[in-house]
Amino acid sequence: MAKKEAAPYKIYLTENELPTSWYNLRADMKTKPAPFLHPGTLKPLKFEEMQPIFCDELIKQELDNDTPYIPIPEPIMDFYKMYRPSPLVHAEFLEKLLDTPAKIYYKFEGNNTSGSHKLNSAIAQAYYAKQQGLKGVTTETGAGQWGTALSMACSYFDLDCKVFMVKVSYEQKPFRREVMRTYGANVTPSPSMETEVGRRINAEHPGTTGSLGCAISEAVEVAVGTPGYRYVLGSVLNQVLLHQSVIGLETKAACDKYGIEPDIIIGCAGGGSNLGGLIAPFMGEKLRGEKDYRFIAVEPASCPSFTRGKYVYDFADTGKVCPMAKMYTLGHDFIPSANHAGGLRYHGMSPVLSELYDEGLMEARSYEQTAVFDAAVKFARVEGILPAPESAHAIKGAIDEAIRCRETGEERTIIFGLTGTGYFDLVAYQKYNDGQMSDYIPTDEDLEKGFASIPNIGL
Amino acid sequence: MAKKEAAPYKIYLTENELPTSWYNLRADMKTKPAPFLHPGTLKPLKFEEMQPIFCDELIKQELDNDTPYIPIPEPIMDFYKMYRPSPLVHAEFLEKLLDTPAKIYYKFEGNNTSGSHKLNSAIAQAYYAKQQGLKGVTTETGAGQWGTALSMACSYFDLDCKVFMVKVSYEQKPFRREVMRTYGANVTPSPSMETEVGRRINAEHPGTTGSLGCAISEAVEVAVGTPGYRYVLGSVLNQVLLHQSVIGLETKAACDKYGIEPDIIIGCAGGGSNLGGLIAPFMGEKLRGEKDYRFIAVEPASCPSFTRGKYVYDFADTGKVCPMAKMYTLGHDFIPSANHAGGLRYHGMSPVLSELYDEGLMEARSYEQTAVFDAAVKFARVEGILPAPESAHAIKGAIDEAIRCRETGEERTIIFGLTGTGYFDLVAYQKYNDGQMSDYIPTDEDLEKGFASIPNIGL
Repeated sequence: MAKKEAAPYKIYLTENELPTSWYNLRADMKTKPAPFLHPGTLKPLKFEEMQPIFCDELIKQELDNDTPYIPIPEPIMDFYKMYRPSPLVHAEFLEKLLDTPAKIYYKFEGNNTSGSHKLNSAIAQAYYAKQQGLKGVTTETGAGQWGTALSMACSYFDLDCKVFMVKVSYEQKPFRREVMRTYGANVTPSPSMETEVGRRINAEHPGTTGSLGCAISEAVEVAVGTPGYRYVLGSVLNQVLLHQSVIGLETKAACDKYGIEPDIIIGCAGGGSNLGGLIAPFMGEKLRGEKDYRFIAVEPASCPSFTRGKYVYDFADTGKVCPMAKMYTLGHDFIPSANHAGGLRYHGMSPVLSELYDEGLMEARSYEQTAVFDAAVKFARVEGILPAPESAHAIKGAIDEAIRCRETGEERTIIFGLTGTGYFDLVAYQKYNDGQMSDYIPTDEDLEKGFASIPNIGL
Repeated sequence: MAKKEAAPYKIYLTENELPTSWYNLRADMKTKPAPFLHPGTLKPLKFEEMQPIFCDELIKQELDNDTPYIPIPEPIMDFYKMYRPSPLVHAEFLEKLLDTPAKIYYKFEGNNTSGSHKLNSAIAQAYYAKQQGLKGVTTETGAGQWGTALSMACSYFDLDCKVFMVKVSYEQKPFRREVMRTYGANVTPSPSMETEVGRRINAEHPGTTGSLGCAISEAVEVAVGTPGYRYVLGSVLNQVLLHQSVIGLETKAACDKYGIEPDIIIGCAGGGSNLGGLIAPFMGEKLRGEKDYRFIAVEPASCPSFTRGKYVYDFADTGKVCPMAKMYTLGHDFIPSANHAGGLRYHGMSPVLSELYDEGLMEARSYEQTAVFDAAVKFARVEGILPAPESAHAIKGAIDEAIRCRETGEERTIIFGLTGTGYFDLVAYQKYNDGQMSDYIPTDEDLEKGFASIPNIGL
């Protein structure tokens, strides 16, 4: 094999090296992710049953377990070029700090105004909504990254955008709200008094700071009840992982170009969109028996869907408005503490990743918040990027693996996903800087309460 | 000449195409910028007289009007590669929106955690301070971009960093303060009660929201009075423009690579560091008679140093602690209204740019705040980047030139400097979104009050 050119510190693919199709990992899975069920019939949800909620083309993508590559439409490619390719960065400064024989790379998705990878799917979903002639879309947002991304995408295609923002984030991150408004979105704290489900949850849990599950219920209720509107979701769904595969495809292309051979691939996991996107083409190779990799999902100890959840059918949302999904779940009534990694506070996990994890193709671990911020600040000071708390979970995972390499002398190559920047998470950083950050691990009793909400349908 | 490859939407130079020296525009100026004067003797300041304030190597750079290229030390090149090259972006989406025959490009310096171009000089100044064996540095910051940049640079070289932050920004931008603290800096609102000059200004102007000129006085007082400390400044100085030439050199290299021939180069101007850096190599060509360009400085109508100031010797700071500089100035006692473009609120202007402007080699114009935010939001929605209010002045300038081209049918090529992102300026965006943004233009009487503070030394 011809010797490859040495990789620069930051790898930017050229425009003609960019992926032109998304990769659908499901096509290579022997056991497909379990289908969504209709909560009444407990039968797999049909296309027609999803139509009131989702855009037609997105439902097709959601249900398509067979087509391996789906071409990226031209207008989406146009938008991608505004902020893609994202760089694959060789974390030389971090390696030096850790004095490790490991090679560490990170795929940095934060260099856009939404501040994260969420834009990759937002623009796709807005595009298909526009194609269908819709007037607008509704959604929920946790940390605010997805809502910001969707606002930008809707503004680009001139669509209305109604965002239900988890109350704790709405209050801690007023500036995210202003970015969304600058892009023309309507933003409401959730649970609100604007929907039936919001009023019910407010009545049952007075003073609740909200959850993604609850905000989803509200957004779906409004979408279904408003002509010309559909609901869009920033994570968990198969279609979202499909769009996010652009992260993994670019990463793989950069690795192949420069002869980088990763051993371990690490990502933070909330609903699983970033992790699912990053690992997609590598997991494909593993599933096809071409190569082997270790994949590690990192989640907060305060919301441990993989590490302490159950792999069963559960409602995707607190209000039980949505279909049921088979996934690792803490129960749809589980409302995590006001952990700052707002984007990782979802009670469930992508069905695709849940299946892969259940088959032992992936590992998972959880970390407490203070340890994650320790890693974030360490990273920020040497690599120059202030990470989002969500992303910092992956940093912590990568640092621990690199330290293990130092102890064993193994020269592993680690790639992790740096999903976003922490510019809107300064309330959390302030708490950390002031030594006032607390950790929270749910007790077994706390978890039992959440598990009690899982419907007993024997699946 | 061989046909050049078509430029991609975003041009990233490769590592081996990056400038390895800074370009010192003064070497090509026939009339050199006027020297700093000692306020007592009114004689040009000598190296030894500057030593208590500045680092030795930086004084050499400050006084060097002859060496055209100064090599960038290896450790600075190392740091630059973390966030450089910055992209030169073809603003296709903006061109389409404006329906203009003009070609618009922008050099985007905001893709780093400090959020602006300021890091280019911060890392250089921190490096030379470290080389000299100093313990730390002091500085002022307006919008907070320079302070953040310096905090990052000092953290990288393990130097103490003490920042006086203009009070209005300190209050409007608590999150900037937290970024600085995350990088280990000590941040104090200015005017403070920690310095003699701060106490005096607080007594004379009770309730003042501060100014850059006043924060400079405080930072200099602390630097001079603390063993092992020196003062560093993020704009105005010759050395800063020297370091910032990396912006222009990259821009020029990208233009040359793809055959882009700019007609008009536009930048916002506060102290002049970004504009001076961006135009440097192009202005060099103009001074040497090789090519012609139009250069346009854009400033806020609320602090119109170029468009309404006087080109005379004045104190660089409110407290008269610093030497005197010949520059376009509104008078060192001029305290602008609490305009949100905090980084453009300085009463004076770089001596290099002042001399060029005085010789008619550059144009200047001023805009009111609301018009600037109109341009910012327009740009954000089509080009995807939420700009800093400072940078938005350049956007407004570029849009106006592009509209002029639409009217005249001229196919000009416009390059503007997009110095940073507005992620920490959401209080201002909120005011704009709520329709509560006000404009302020100083009256002639307001200006006269500022002019009255200019020392009458007949120069």
